[in-house]
Amino acid sequence: MSTVIAVETSDVRFPTSRNLDGSDAMNPDPDYSAAYLRVVTDSEDGLEGHGFVFTIGRGNDVETAAIKALTPYLLGRNVEELLADMGGTWKELTHDSQLRWLGPEKGVMHMAIGAVVNALWDLKSKRAGLPLWQLLATMSPEELVDLVDFRYLTDAMTREEALDILRASEAGREERTATLLAEGYPGYTTTPGWLGYSDEKLTRLAHEAVAAGFKQIKLKVGADLDDDIRRLRTARAAVGPDIKVAVDANQRWDVAQAIEWMSHLAEFDIAWIEEPTSPDDILGHAAIARGVAPIPVATGEHVQNRVVFKQMLQADALQVLQIDAARVAGVNENVAILLLAAKFGVRVCPHAGGVGLCEAVQHLSMFDFVAVSGKKDDRMIEFVDHLHEHFVTPIDVHHGCYWPPLAPGGGSEMYAASVAEYTFPDGEFWVADAAQHAEQKELV
Amino acid sequence: MSTVIAVETSDVRFPTSRNLDGSDAMNPDPDYSAAYLRVVTDSEDGLEGHGFVFTIGRGNDVETAAIKALTPYLLGRNVEELLADMGGTWKELTHDSQLRWLGPEKGVMHMAIGAVVNALWDLKSKRAGLPLWQLLATMSPEELVDLVDFRYLTDAMTREEALDILRASEAGREERTATLLAEGYPGYTTTPGWLGYSDEKLTRLAHEAVAAGFKQIKLKVGADLDDDIRRLRTARAAVGPDIKVAVDANQRWDVAQAIEWMSHLAEFDIAWIEEPTSPDDILGHAAIARGVAPIPVATGEHVQNRVVFKQMLQADALQVLQIDAARVAGVNENVAILLLAAKFGVRVCPHAGGVGLCEAVQHLSMFDFVAVSGKKDDRMIEFVDHLHEHFVTPIDVHHGCYWPPLAPGGGSEMYAASVAEYTFPDGEFWVADAAQHAEQKELV
Repeated sequence: MSTVIAVETSDVRFPTSRNLDGSDAMNPDPDYSAAYLRVVTDSEDGLEGHGFVFTIGRGNDVETAAIKALTPYLLGRNVEELLADMGGTWKELTHDSQLRWLGPEKGVMHMAIGAVVNALWDLKSKRAGLPLWQLLATMSPEELVDLVDFRYLTDAMTREEALDILRASEAGREERTATLLAEGYPGYTTTPGWLGYSDEKLTRLAHEAVAAGFKQIKLKVGADLDDDIRRLRTARAAVGPDIKVAVDANQRWDVAQAIEWMSHLAEFDIAWIEEPTSPDDILGHAAIARGVAPIPVATGEHVQNRVVFKQMLQADALQVLQIDAARVAGVNENVAILLLAAKFGVRVCPHAGGVGLCEAVQHLSMFDFVAVSGKKDDRMIEFVDHLHEHFVTPIDVHHGCYWPPLAPGGGSEMYAASVAEYTFPDGEFWVADAAQHAEQKELV
Repeated sequence: MSTVIAVETSDVRFPTSRNLDGSDAMNPDPDYSAAYLRVVTDSEDGLEGHGFVFTIGRGNDVETAAIKALTPYLLGRNVEELLADMGGTWKELTHDSQLRWLGPEKGVMHMAIGAVVNALWDLKSKRAGLPLWQLLATMSPEELVDLVDFRYLTDAMTREEALDILRASEAGREERTATLLAEGYPGYTTTPGWLGYSDEKLTRLAHEAVAAGFKQIKLKVGADLDDDIRRLRTARAAVGPDIKVAVDANQRWDVAQAIEWMSHLAEFDIAWIEEPTSPDDILGHAAIARGVAPIPVATGEHVQNRVVFKQMLQADALQVLQIDAARVAGVNENVAILLLAAKFGVRVCPHAGGVGLCEAVQHLSMFDFVAVSGKKDDRMIEFVDHLHEHFVTPIDVHHGCYWPPLAPGGGSEMYAASVAEYTFPDGEFWVADAAQHAEQKELV
């Protein structure tokens, strides 16, 4: 029997905006950041649970405060009880009768719950000696549906229907695990496509992406139509006709504008249009999907919870569902979303990048392949080559694929030294940075 | 010319859970709270702007941290510039390229923006020497549409269409102002209907509500069907056939359950069913509305922003739109929502109660009557008799009506002494409370 004896939160920020890495039509200057959480127990095994919320800079302190507000749910609690009933633990956090007013189930507080839930899954996986994807894939259909809160879902998917999906794919789990270990899971790369890059850099990075084995690249669009047309021509020329090219508008457009803009890009054989408008606009996405067909609509990285995903599926508003490891309330809610996607027969291609999103979300796709949808050849995980060096078990991406992590845990643990160095504003990096700014000011 | 020289935030909490005031099926133990904001300038007029986010206890610290994260937008800024272009100020806050990741436009950060925006409107009204409703009602149609961010709205309402609505009601403004001052604005009361009350208390409070001139009361439902039937029978017996009785499920149900449950309550002539399910579930509300017709569906107090309201209207998911002064990003976004409601011909009956929500939201309904919809006899503002004594300009409700505030400002200013006494955990009340708890522990 063990107890949670410490919960440590850290406001970790990386100065990515200085290199124009990650710039798009709505997020011109992101400083990739993590509101980070470490759960410590008094167990002799010394294992800890790590989780985070990804943000892009300012406001990471607010997110850290939200995680801190949840520590009373952890401190002093029996660890075995928390981990044995992760469905109950999830509900306890999500349905707190006072905290839910701050959402409910959306925004800062919901993401904070996600960090806590993911930290507990990290700990549970480490205790099981398994990577998270494999831990989930060893759970029975009954245990898996017990993770899901079916409240607000039953008009689209009941518990029984979810059980049927899981039972149908139970037989092939072993074979698919072997396939996954042998073939990896397809990835695609956004690295060439950021708005801040020159055409030369775009061409070079697109060539590199193809050489690295990726079958799809993605370009940011939506700031300027002429630029988009030129960049897509450049990209298509660089990769040839056999590599897929997706585009991402990062919520830039209204409905009519999205349809009109995409009509000018269609000639470049677009794999999908991602985030054409507000992530809250289910009916808008549905109208856009009808208007740009046969180009598929993709969205999800900012979709707040399972209730909105449910409606997106009901309304045929998306044809590619992009889960995110750190937007909804953690693994449990993503299991619900994977089940919904399977119910509606929609493929899942996770959002990743940022800080640690690749490390975390790969587990969900691999679990989905082994135990839920049973499919991987029509789907892929986003890959961006940023900041992996700060993670204890960084992703292994080569030959255009994610290779299954074998180390125990959920992938979200950062090196303590990285956390310390980039903690804002008191970490070594930010102190030196502030001193340098002060010096420059004196010189002026 | 003046400058913002201080921005003070306070975590103010009232111990309302101890009296079972405000209990419902989802919120059994609310401690009505305000994440409170005071904007101080160096102007000789000494006027300040006050705003708040309403919460129900835990998490009020997170909301306060979110408001604090916005202070760099205010400190040192030219006040006249901020107030002269409130549409621009709103966009600057809402579209911060890094902070928007925390929503976008929902939850903790969006509500914090609402507190800042409302504090600026409070200051602007005080400077104009007018109550907020009247300040808004003196603005031209062009000035009013400049307050609105039409991004993500144009598939339902363009700027030109909004202008047409405002121009159509421009002629009658003076006459309607006189009507409003002479007749007041209808209110209804939730005071009898909380779940924690006995049938005797329900009957007594229902009689009092009718005697006080209210034409509608509202009962919380959704915890237990037999209880609901008994309480509705009790309420209907107390008020007779001519007083309207609405019910409020506070998001308790799934779609099919809502329709089934309401079929058992229909015999009591229900004025509306409020929050039958998740506030995110546009398609669910639409299905419920079809299933319970002709009972109208009401929702809005937890609807996160104008984009979700837009879809609720497009999908005919609600027949009564309940704006809230402190859920969306302040006055500007509520002006957008009032315009959308007018465009779709749906009546607006604001959510109020809690701390200061009555004081703040009445201005929006009165502005709507004078300058937008031109209607008030088919709508009413919720009234709950809680905590008004802490406000500098408390509501005046009598003869079943809200009477137009004449004092300058937006209504959200609390007495400094109240803020000080109930600041958590260091205010006088909470210090004494903690000491009492410690003493009781010692006695045990």
